[in-house]
Amino acid sequence: MADLPISKQRDITSYDNGTVRHIQDAVVEEYPLTLFLNRAELATMVCSPTGFNELAAGFLLSEGLVRTPADLIEVNVREEEGSLLIRTGGEAPPANETRRRHITTGAGKSGTDFRFINAARQILPIQSQARFTATHLLEMIDLLQQRSATFVLTGGVHSAALADQDGMICMFEDIGRHNAVDKVLGYAFLHGISSQDKILLLSGRIASEILLKAARAQIPLVLSRSAPTGLTIDLAEELNITVVGFARGKRLSVYTHPERVLL
Amino acid sequence: MADLPISKQRDITSYDNGTVRHIQDAVVEEYPLTLFLNRAELATMVCSPTGFNELAAGFLLSEGLVRTPADLIEVNVREEEGSLLIRTGGEAPPANETRRRHITTGAGKSGTDFRFINAARQILPIQSQARFTATHLLEMIDLLQQRSATFVLTGGVHSAALADQDGMICMFEDIGRHNAVDKVLGYAFLHGISSQDKILLLSGRIASEILLKAARAQIPLVLSRSAPTGLTIDLAEELNITVVGFARGKRLSVYTHPERVLL
Repeated sequence: MADLPISKQRDITSYDNGTVRHIQDAVVEEYPLTLFLNRAELATMVCSPTGFNELAAGFLLSEGLVRTPADLIEVNVREEEGSLLIRTGGEAPPANETRRRHITTGAGKSGTDFRFINAARQILPIQSQARFTATHLLEMIDLLQQRSATFVLTGGVHSAALADQDGMICMFEDIGRHNAVDKVLGYAFLHGISSQDKILLLSGRIASEILLKAARAQIPLVLSRSAPTGLTIDLAEELNITVVGFARGKRLSVYTHPERVLL
Repeated sequence: MADLPISKQRDITSYDNGTVRHIQDAVVEEYPLTLFLNRAELATMVCSPTGFNELAAGFLLSEGLVRTPADLIEVNVREEEGSLLIRTGGEAPPANETRRRHITTGAGKSGTDFRFINAARQILPIQSQARFTATHLLEMIDLLQQRSATFVLTGGVHSAALADQDGMICMFEDIGRHNAVDKVLGYAFLHGISSQDKILLLSGRIASEILLKAARAQIPLVLSRSAPTGLTIDLAEELNITVVGFARGKRLSVYTHPERVLL
């Protein structure tokens, strides 16, 4: 299906220092989507109605429900119902074993025996020898912001992108930070692009769940205009991922594994 | 349990226009919490480790698992496990009937037959005759920002508050926008404060799920520094809730039911 508009014009009563005007302004759409995997209901989310194939692929990948692009046989959007019908086959793992993990998605605390930290420890630490100059990182984050037109228009959308030494590979916007990242990782998966020497760029906070998505995709560096959390830093330390936050203008902060950033 | 720190100092490699420094800076904590209701696992979330009683009450309220403060018998945090043990009794509804709804939490699209919009239609439209001046709304949002110290320090926390004609009643911060709102609504619930003539204030986007939390609590006006979504506007129109966004400095935008805002 073709993308639907990510935002629409709405009627607004605008108040500015005593002056009232009736205007129209762009408001971001929130699109409810129920995912069905091989006819079984998998999850309901709200998203921006673009990149449905990438979202489906990235979501299944994050949940461990596909391993290769060949596992994903068909993705169909039924717009009138808000349904995304996904068919997998081949060597794709069954949904039931991972369903529970999705439902109780949480995060762990370093140094304690939380369930989730143990799940995180099953992810192999990143092996990548990739290095990036601080200047390149700042150029990429600047490009992300320049291209994030919807955020400027509506103040309501997160953007995520994949980049390497040569520039930006793909970029997606979504009202959900996690969805934007799923679309990016889904794009790389569907196009057979290895993410092992890549940068994951985000407009928003680097939450632990996003760090773990990057880890599962073996991405060595996560870069954001915004801040990481303490748990993200703890996990990134263990998983050998470089976390760079508050990248704006000529400044950035490296929270873990600074050896990958040539300063 | 006493609150834990919402942020902690971390070691950072700071890069600024070619100059590298090793500094310490505040980073927001992300605390994983598994809720057990009457010994059965209910949900796992990440949150800021403050206001556990309010979070438990607000979460159960949003899920329809408590109706009166007397239903909530005990809330216990086990810090070393990241567990929140909740005991309900009296007339509290059983968890199993609502569990599924929690798992597939989603949102609907106005004018179509999405499941969620039908659930939303079971909420009664707001009856409140409350009115607020634009000046008062701007004063309240300004106060919310002044008090949101953590956001300024770490760039990573959402704040939510309840206010009325006379001023601010309570305010909570959380890395999760939904948690911050649950804490506010939980506080009002635990203190027997009627929310029918109140304002719900937010630092972040007014997503449809937050609008529905306000609707269940019969709050007539939701006010944010940020934007609502299209779905929020559609639902607020039907539920007779006034949505005010982009409230900053001397400006604000009224998206629905402007009769409650005295301009």
